[in-house]
Amino acid sequence: MTREKVAELIKCNTIFQAPMAGVTTPQLVSEVSNQGGIGNIGAGYLTAKQTQDFIDQVQMKTDYIFGINVFVPEVNELREIDFKHAKQKLKELAPAYAKEIPEEIETSHMFVEQINIIMEKSVPIVSFTFGLPDIEMIEQLKQAGSYVIGTATTVKEAIEVEKSGCDAVVVQGFEAGGHRGTFLDDNSLIGLFSLLPQVADAVKIPIIAAGGIMDRRGVKAAYCLGASSVQLGTAFLMTHESSADNLHKTTLLSSNETDTVLTKAFSGKLARGINNEFIKKYKHETKNILPYPFQNSLTKNMRALAKQQNDKSFMSLWAGQSVRLSKKQSVKELMNELKK
Amino acid sequence: MTREKVAELIKCNTIFQAPMAGVTTPQLVSEVSNQGGIGNIGAGYLTAKQTQDFIDQVQMKTDYIFGINVFVPEVNELREIDFKHAKQKLKELAPAYAKEIPEEIETSHMFVEQINIIMEKSVPIVSFTFGLPDIEMIEQLKQAGSYVIGTATTVKEAIEVEKSGCDAVVVQGFEAGGHRGTFLDDNSLIGLFSLLPQVADAVKIPIIAAGGIMDRRGVKAAYCLGASSVQLGTAFLMTHESSADNLHKTTLLSSNETDTVLTKAFSGKLARGINNEFIKKYKHETKNILPYPFQNSLTKNMRALAKQQNDKSFMSLWAGQSVRLSKKQSVKELMNELKK
Repeated sequence: MTREKVAELIKCNTIFQAPMAGVTTPQLVSEVSNQGGIGNIGAGYLTAKQTQDFIDQVQMKTDYIFGINVFVPEVNELREIDFKHAKQKLKELAPAYAKEIPEEIETSHMFVEQINIIMEKSVPIVSFTFGLPDIEMIEQLKQAGSYVIGTATTVKEAIEVEKSGCDAVVVQGFEAGGHRGTFLDDNSLIGLFSLLPQVADAVKIPIIAAGGIMDRRGVKAAYCLGASSVQLGTAFLMTHESSADNLHKTTLLSSNETDTVLTKAFSGKLARGINNEFIKKYKHETKNILPYPFQNSLTKNMRALAKQQNDKSFMSLWAGQSVRLSKKQSVKELMNELKK
Repeated sequence: MTREKVAELIKCNTIFQAPMAGVTTPQLVSEVSNQGGIGNIGAGYLTAKQTQDFIDQVQMKTDYIFGINVFVPEVNELREIDFKHAKQKLKELAPAYAKEIPEEIETSHMFVEQINIIMEKSVPIVSFTFGLPDIEMIEQLKQAGSYVIGTATTVKEAIEVEKSGCDAVVVQGFEAGGHRGTFLDDNSLIGLFSLLPQVADAVKIPIIAAGGIMDRRGVKAAYCLGASSVQLGTAFLMTHESSADNLHKTTLLSSNETDTVLTKAFSGKLARGINNEFIKKYKHETKNILPYPFQNSLTKNMRALAKQQNDKSFMSLWAGQSVRLSKKQSVKELMNELKK
């Protein structure tokens, strides 16, 4: 029954809160769903236990449909020599945080455990970023009652998502803040304006448009271009209910469309955020950045301490290109504006 | 009177054919205007005499409003040593065309002469790319009865266009094919989806949206995002009336959204086209490319011969990111589709 209900919602122009790993809170996710949207848990960095607790808390706060997003693990191997060089480079470029750079990194994947919990808890929507799990897992999730969504940044990826058995696809434009969901194509920086109609011509499953949508204008435009629903990241990151750092939010308030850049420096995967000293230092660095998730683990403590110390030069200030439209407001205020 | 008529048209969702220097023909420009749009002469590379003849021919073929686009000259100085290195590099990377690489280049600007002719001929619309002329020239053009349009790729540039006295602004997104109109900001690769609403909040003059619009879906979306009119390049380049090479057109027909890239290799200015051998060879080259217009002059004969020889590896195959939506059709067919 849930799957049919979700399918109906997605067909009828529903607002998704993007599952921003690290800044979604049970308050944020549940409030979006309570206000008529679909809240999404960003479980990318959560352990199995944290995933379980997060779902429990959301379920206590809402009876409406919500989703959870997980990162599909990649089989990247870490060579000792690369780790050594990346560590050295990071110490050189972020000397004030040298103590925070770990001598060893662990990257235990919780993916299968997460999926098991999601099935046990019957989460209504499960979405995937950074690729697709095997077809059997998607089928299992569907049989367990979940509606399954993949993420694409090109037409080829959207076709792959459809082929895998996913029920719908998040189509992420070049403008989007945070990590790019790219998993197949090299040259995947496609503006949402171009990407949506080309994907719409190529797949039959519903499209959820993401990237650069901040207000009613973007919502309506996405529907014109072939989307059935929309997903907003930066706009929800700015709400009172998100756990994004206050400095992150105030920085976005005073930023403009030319302030964001794409970088691999923080995590090893391309992501869009406000340009700062850390990103600039890595601008011409191609070799000494580890692949995801290793670079992410390498910079984790640095980012945490930078946040504690209000040092925005070394924080990851994720934001999309529509950052001028940022407003500090409640989820309720944002949802009311979007529904107008 | 003309100025008021144009102002009315622009407010009421009019289709502009982008003034693609090199591929616009009197047939193309006049037919767009005859079909209810606004055709535009791409006069960027024309001499004063060619500009005059082109205007005459368009005026013979249509009684409707049309426009002309000119490139604002930049004061780039060419150092002998840079010229030597760029020439060497080009010979090295395009050995089959070594004979076509000129020993000397001239770059006489016809700008003032072009403007004088445009004023004499009372061309209804004059648009500028690569910057703005001085305020007095804009005022003179307006007094001579022309409606004046500037081109912007960021909010700051759009504000500058408005301040200069221009009547409207073409807002060009990251997706656009051909040359980027950037003239102020370094980091100006903004997706149209993000750019339009942010410009709309910042200026009062009407916005003509450009970049990635190929069909009715894009037209409607641009209006949702704050545009009053739209401008299409690639879609008109594909029409029978454009003089784009047939190989250029057929290449676009079989290309997809991940095939286009931005390059300075052909002209010294960033432009979007289908990736090919020439662009790939210059991919990591930053030093030995001359600033516009010198690089353009340097590669001119090479491009011409490559076209003659049907060698698409060395042609500039300009195209926007919506290239999958390309169709070979007449201007009339395209206009009918857009007006639906």
